[in-house]
Amino acid sequence: MQYRLSSWLLLSSIVVFATLVAFFAFTPLSHNSSFPSNPIEKFGYSARKQNTWADLSEGEAADIYAFLHEEFADLNLTKHPKSGQENFISFIEVLRPNKTDALLYLADTANVPQRWARVALAQNVQDQALIVYYMVGPLPISSGSQALPLEYCFNSGRNYVPNPVGNYVRLQDFSLALAENISDITEALLGATANRANPDDPDGLLVVPRPVRVAGGDLVEWVQLYRPGMKSNARTILPQGIYAKLNTSSRDVGEWTVGGWYYNGVLYESIDSFRAAVQAPGFQKTPLNLDGPWTDTEDFVSSPPGRDMPPPVMVQPNGPRYRLDRKERHVSWMGFEFYLSTAQATGVGLFDIRFKGERVMYELGLQEAMAHYAGDDPTQGGLEFLDTFFGMGKLAFELVPGYDCPAYADYLSSTYHWMEQVHALPNSVCIFEYTSDHLLSRHTSQFAVTLSRNTYLTVRSVSTVGNYDYTIDYIFYLDGSIEVKVRASGFIFAAFYTNNPKKEEHKYGYRLHDAAGSSMHDHVINFKADLDVSGTANEFVRVAIEPMTTSYPWDRPEVDARNTMHLVEHPLVRETGLDWPKNSGEMYIVYDSEEENAWGERRGYRITPGTGMGTPPHLTILNSTTLGKSARWSERDMWVLRRKDTEPRSADPLNFLEPLDPLVDFERMADGESLAQEHFDGDLVLFFNLGAHHVPHSGDIPNTLMHTSASSVMFVPHNFHDRDPSRETVQGVRLELVGKNSGGFASEDAEDAAGDSRSRVSRRDGEKKRHKARYFGATYEEGVTLPLQALEPNLREYASSENGVTDLSLNGSVAGVWMRNGP
Amino acid sequence: MQYRLSSWLLLSSIVVFATLVAFFAFTPLSHNSSFPSNPIEKFGYSARKQNTWADLSEGEAADIYAFLHEEFADLNLTKHPKSGQENFISFIEVLRPNKTDALLYLADTANVPQRWARVALAQNVQDQALIVYYMVGPLPISSGSQALPLEYCFNSGRNYVPNPVGNYVRLQDFSLALAENISDITEALLGATANRANPDDPDGLLVVPRPVRVAGGDLVEWVQLYRPGMKSNARTILPQGIYAKLNTSSRDVGEWTVGGWYYNGVLYESIDSFRAAVQAPGFQKTPLNLDGPWTDTEDFVSSPPGRDMPPPVMVQPNGPRYRLDRKERHVSWMGFEFYLSTAQATGVGLFDIRFKGERVMYELGLQEAMAHYAGDDPTQGGLEFLDTFFGMGKLAFELVPGYDCPAYADYLSSTYHWMEQVHALPNSVCIFEYTSDHLLSRHTSQFAVTLSRNTYLTVRSVSTVGNYDYTIDYIFYLDGSIEVKVRASGFIFAAFYTNNPKKEEHKYGYRLHDAAGSSMHDHVINFKADLDVSGTANEFVRVAIEPMTTSYPWDRPEVDARNTMHLVEHPLVRETGLDWPKNSGEMYIVYDSEEENAWGERRGYRITPGTGMGTPPHLTILNSTTLGKSARWSERDMWVLRRKDTEPRSADPLNFLEPLDPLVDFERMADGESLAQEHFDGDLVLFFNLGAHHVPHSGDIPNTLMHTSASSVMFVPHNFHDRDPSRETVQGVRLELVGKNSGGFASEDAEDAAGDSRSRVSRRDGEKKRHKARYFGATYEEGVTLPLQALEPNLREYASSENGVTDLSLNGSVAGVWMRNGP
Repeated sequence: MQYRLSSWLLLSSIVVFATLVAFFAFTPLSHNSSFPSNPIEKFGYSARKQNTWADLSEGEAADIYAFLHEEFADLNLTKHPKSGQENFISFIEVLRPNKTDALLYLADTANVPQRWARVALAQNVQDQALIVYYMVGPLPISSGSQALPLEYCFNSGRNYVPNPVGNYVRLQDFSLALAENISDITEALLGATANRANPDDPDGLLVVPRPVRVAGGDLVEWVQLYRPGMKSNARTILPQGIYAKLNTSSRDVGEWTVGGWYYNGVLYESIDSFRAAVQAPGFQKTPLNLDGPWTDTEDFVSSPPGRDMPPPVMVQPNGPRYRLDRKERHVSWMGFEFYLSTAQATGVGLFDIRFKGERVMYELGLQEAMAHYAGDDPTQGGLEFLDTFFGMGKLAFELVPGYDCPAYADYLSSTYHWMEQVHALPNSVCIFEYTSDHLLSRHTSQFAVTLSRNTYLTVRSVSTVGNYDYTIDYIFYLDGSIEVKVRASGFIFAAFYTNNPKKEEHKYGYRLHDAAGSSMHDHVINFKADLDVSGTANEFVRVAIEPMTTSYPWDRPEVDARNTMHLVEHPLVRETGLDWPKNSGEMYIVYDSEEENAWGERRGYRITPGTGMGTPPHLTILNSTTLGKSARWSERDMWVLRRKDTEPRSADPLNFLEPLDPLVDFERMADGESLAQEHFDGDLVLFFNLGAHHVPHSGDIPNTLMHTSASSVMFVPHNFHDRDPSRETVQGVRLELVGKNSGGFASEDAEDAAGDSRSRVSRRDGEKKRHKARYFGATYEEGVTLPLQALEPNLREYASSENGVTDLSLNGSVAGVWMRNGP
Repeated sequence: MQYRLSSWLLLSSIVVFATLVAFFAFTPLSHNSSFPSNPIEKFGYSARKQNTWADLSEGEAADIYAFLHEEFADLNLTKHPKSGQENFISFIEVLRPNKTDALLYLADTANVPQRWARVALAQNVQDQALIVYYMVGPLPISSGSQALPLEYCFNSGRNYVPNPVGNYVRLQDFSLALAENISDITEALLGATANRANPDDPDGLLVVPRPVRVAGGDLVEWVQLYRPGMKSNARTILPQGIYAKLNTSSRDVGEWTVGGWYYNGVLYESIDSFRAAVQAPGFQKTPLNLDGPWTDTEDFVSSPPGRDMPPPVMVQPNGPRYRLDRKERHVSWMGFEFYLSTAQATGVGLFDIRFKGERVMYELGLQEAMAHYAGDDPTQGGLEFLDTFFGMGKLAFELVPGYDCPAYADYLSSTYHWMEQVHALPNSVCIFEYTSDHLLSRHTSQFAVTLSRNTYLTVRSVSTVGNYDYTIDYIFYLDGSIEVKVRASGFIFAAFYTNNPKKEEHKYGYRLHDAAGSSMHDHVINFKADLDVSGTANEFVRVAIEPMTTSYPWDRPEVDARNTMHLVEHPLVRETGLDWPKNSGEMYIVYDSEEENAWGERRGYRITPGTGMGTPPHLTILNSTTLGKSARWSERDMWVLRRKDTEPRSADPLNFLEPLDPLVDFERMADGESLAQEHFDGDLVLFFNLGAHHVPHSGDIPNTLMHTSASSVMFVPHNFHDRDPSRETVQGVRLELVGKNSGGFASEDAEDAAGDSRSRVSRRDGEKKRHKARYFGATYEEGVTLPLQALEPNLREYASSENGVTDLSLNGSVAGVWMRNGP
């Protein structure tokens, strides 16, 4: 398997999962042709402008590879590195245009911005192995194209990071050899051994390393033995409680050393002392953490009442109400318009989001996804992941129609360019409308009731980073609100649970099985929201809702001093981090600095925790030892900064490799610059966090559930329009009482309200009120029928044809199209 | 209209709306027969026990009325009071059994508890008008039945409150006469006059009073003129900015006085001084707040792209998966079981909620709904409502199938007993399953992906208290979680906006129209959750997620001290109020005091903010002058108390009438008693708040939207089971890669991963992976068709038959049944 794994990118255990999936996740793609556009073109819709944020095409990539081989001929770039000691092109992707340039293009005052590529070269044939960023352009490659060090967007002043693990495969091999060397011990303690000869041995122990980056450059790895959990890929809940400490600083594997062993709360200096202890009488063994039915993610057997019937399902028999330009990846729905782009590190990003023709955000997208663990063992005690390093876009796999998204959704595919290959991720983004179980608005008056449906548009992708599946939604509502929501599911990264009273495992979680415990961790997931509220000149204001005691002239003499409340405005004067306020007692609003609505109120968008679980948290740990400076954005809930072309992102994926001196140090971005109007153009950018403090309990076994893992932030128009704009697009009904002009909704006519109610009840028994229904927006036509077949996704349709074998890779939109065509 | 309105209950303007609706909201109901049971009985399901919490039947009520007329013959109870000065029976309802007794019944160790009724008598023929509570029972009425003062559940030691407004109609009449007396002024300032002669005059000014309860018993009323806003019932956004102060303390209207006038920030001592000012040159008039299209709740005209097509809709073609005993109002769904009961003050309450056979809550239900305003004018400055006084159950009107709840939902009707009449609220509660747009769980492994649908059960009602429609949901999830969610929609209670720079209107809200402004207000809505986590002996623990710096033996020498985090437990030792923690940094858990799960962890339920907007807030105002002691529960987010039979509710509806000395003073319930195990039986009860700080902006015109007004608390099993129980009930699919045993989900076979990717891409173009789909739970059968007609509620079906006239009062379940029967 060496040829597959010999990449500098393969750093830690998570990568074993990630890369097994990611590296092989390319499906056939011929240039610009393998994703047929939907047979029903969405109204033949075309975006007004090009998608200037689109990732590189396969043709552009091929040209760039050729250019790089020529330009860096002295590096002798290897197309298929075997040992990890060669120089090679790690990845290329689009270098998105600076906002300054893109805005000119969007305003029709300049041509489309030059296209450039971002290139990461693994430069291993030199004293210190490095990963080095270059920018290549303009594209298409011509005689004027150049390869320049990419530095302007990194506040480190560098365009490279050291590549501390030159050879992950050798680390695996070294560790497994080590495990084989103590086969007598593992057999005695775990009833299992490592088996390098057969990587598919269902009982063969595996190793998972946790790197410890040491100031000065040394690299120490703690590795732990794991059972493989092949069936459900349950490895992360099958730690085995035997840990070894390696020093792998040298690029020469021959110089690697084993620093010690750890088992059941005891440190051993060497294999010999560990073995001697195990063989001594009275040695305290831990319980065993064995695989079994408890790791099964499905129950095919139980049949409580009702499970034999399908649940309710959303249908869209009359077709979508949005317009989609698949080529430019532009969506238009009920006044909203936006471009969509994907990137291997950060997944889906949205650009030029407009509502009713006005841009409200220039950019909205993921920046980084962190998971930070705590525990008292050498694995969990320092475990931390920055998942863009593994690729939140690269690991966004095919969505399952009818489950991940409705069968009727539109699916978009994405590609990325890695080690001189183009990789396709078919149907990795879906777009759909959904109608919530509750109304958008409702009003009962005496004579009528009005009800408006809450139908919203969702853009969704799911990134599977090893054990966790992150579902990321961008949601658009009829009133102009935009929500960003993350949900996590999947296996937890469990701790080995010794159940040893001398240990303090209960300080970090709970026992979840015989010898598996939970390990508390914080998910902190950073997003960028570059709001342009009616232009780029904006102000950020905290509006506090505060108690006060005051006197009103009209209140005396009965009330001398009244305990009441009022609003207090606090304009933000400097770049700063903010936390969601106590008792939800402040509104955070980005106001346009210039325009007011018809009533003289500043036009704004409010930023607020949305419909996730409570309020999204930030990192619990103060000044994390593991993170260093790599993720300072995680320390507050939200940050308000000046927007700069030189600060396009809060993090770089390679921050993970150099946490103490990262390429992008967020603290240097959020450095307290003045936000006063006279000091800059007023273009603000927000970075905000979603996530959760996750202390898994028994309900997380086998998988964490998504309904309680949701986290959300919402952007809500605040005096932005002159009144609620959803009225113009919403679908609903008004029921008016017919007949006499009073009596109240859902009641008898007022005329009949006189007299004895009891006698009236019997007298009028069986009579009914009459109401007129007046619909706004469209309703379903009568008489049309919908094949129920359509309610299940295409899975079923194809399952029947081939002896129970389903072809998942067919284009998910087939089901949608079919439904749209109707029977 | 005098005979309709002459009730002590008609206190303030809100009541004008409320009672016009509520008082006339009785539809024909013959005893036990007018709600035909669903033609498809839900599996012929019967609850194991009687619903001992059910409200009084019509027969019971009739017997109680007869008994009361006999027992209180000396009071000369009037069946149809005309003047409001008579004695009469205000309302009767069930006095729910003490939990102590009900538990014995549920445990089969005692018979069903005695039934008693709670009776409120309006005793006006005496020096001080009072509303007096009695308890009558046991039922059925027999020679052993008694009427006793109802005192045991009030910590005031009283069973009565003063009835400060003997005659609301006279207050209206007095105020309108006053307005007519200044017709010259109103004509000059508002272009309109009051018109007592024609209550339906679309231009006739109305009055809305705001009572000021003064220590010592005096009652001062500030009244404001309003335009009627008949069309959309928009009165609460049409204040007119002319205010008068009345002293209405005397029961003799002849003694009522006018204390002053207020207009555009100026107080006038008398009509004369007000008139003189208006007539003087240079008098500053405010803008006009006129009705117009801006108050329309619907837009029938706009047709942006897509509005001409119906949105997606949820269907349930194969029938419901829950079981419903309509007689006992018992529901069983996927392991959950509960009884449902309604009450005129508090609406829906749930009892004996079990999951997988174990009771997890004895009671869950609304206690009180408060709205507290602030402003600098005499109306908004002291406005406050405690809506159970108006009746959250009494004002729960008929739900509209297909809009309020899916067309396929089951609808339950309720009744209440008021002024010797039985009132029916047809289809006022709905029950339905819904499938959310996201999964319950998901896991991608190398060889398979598993996806489970998040289908949940909702019990819903909507209470329209004047201007606001409150949607209240009780939601049940497959994993044993229970969520309580409130959403508000409707017209705001607006302030008159003078736009006078000398006033401080901007301290309380925003200008929303020519002369309408928003008035900041807090909604604080109190619920009781009597958790019995695996028995009544429970403990409440705060588990803090805290940063720390510590040393681990395995971490040295590289890391001397590590900045990390840990869990710190804080058992709650006394009754207390809690706020949701900063940075979501604590878990609030109710643990069973005795039982542990299979892994030795205490079995618990966690209480957490759910999927409303952020974290539910508590009241901003400290020691509110208006509220007095009537709603101390509003001052913290949640309260943990000893449960007592003598403290069944956190509030009484009549608290609204006597805020300074209420029947139930919550502060005396939450009085810091020890929660240590040795001091009581461990039976805890929680009272928690939902709601919002609402600072309406232009997007609230015409109606507040529900998607951003949601507020929720959730109860989540925490180590309660040995593992996630949803696996046994969930519906979903597992897709397994067929063929070679590696390669990863959504990818090519690993065998083919060798070689040149570019050539492979073309070589394998068009080839596809094959997966096997294994379903768990049921899926839809093929070939069945569903008439699209069913997607619209019965509205449409009936609209066609009668010249555009729809009959809404037909039973909502018709559509559901029809769908269940299928074509």
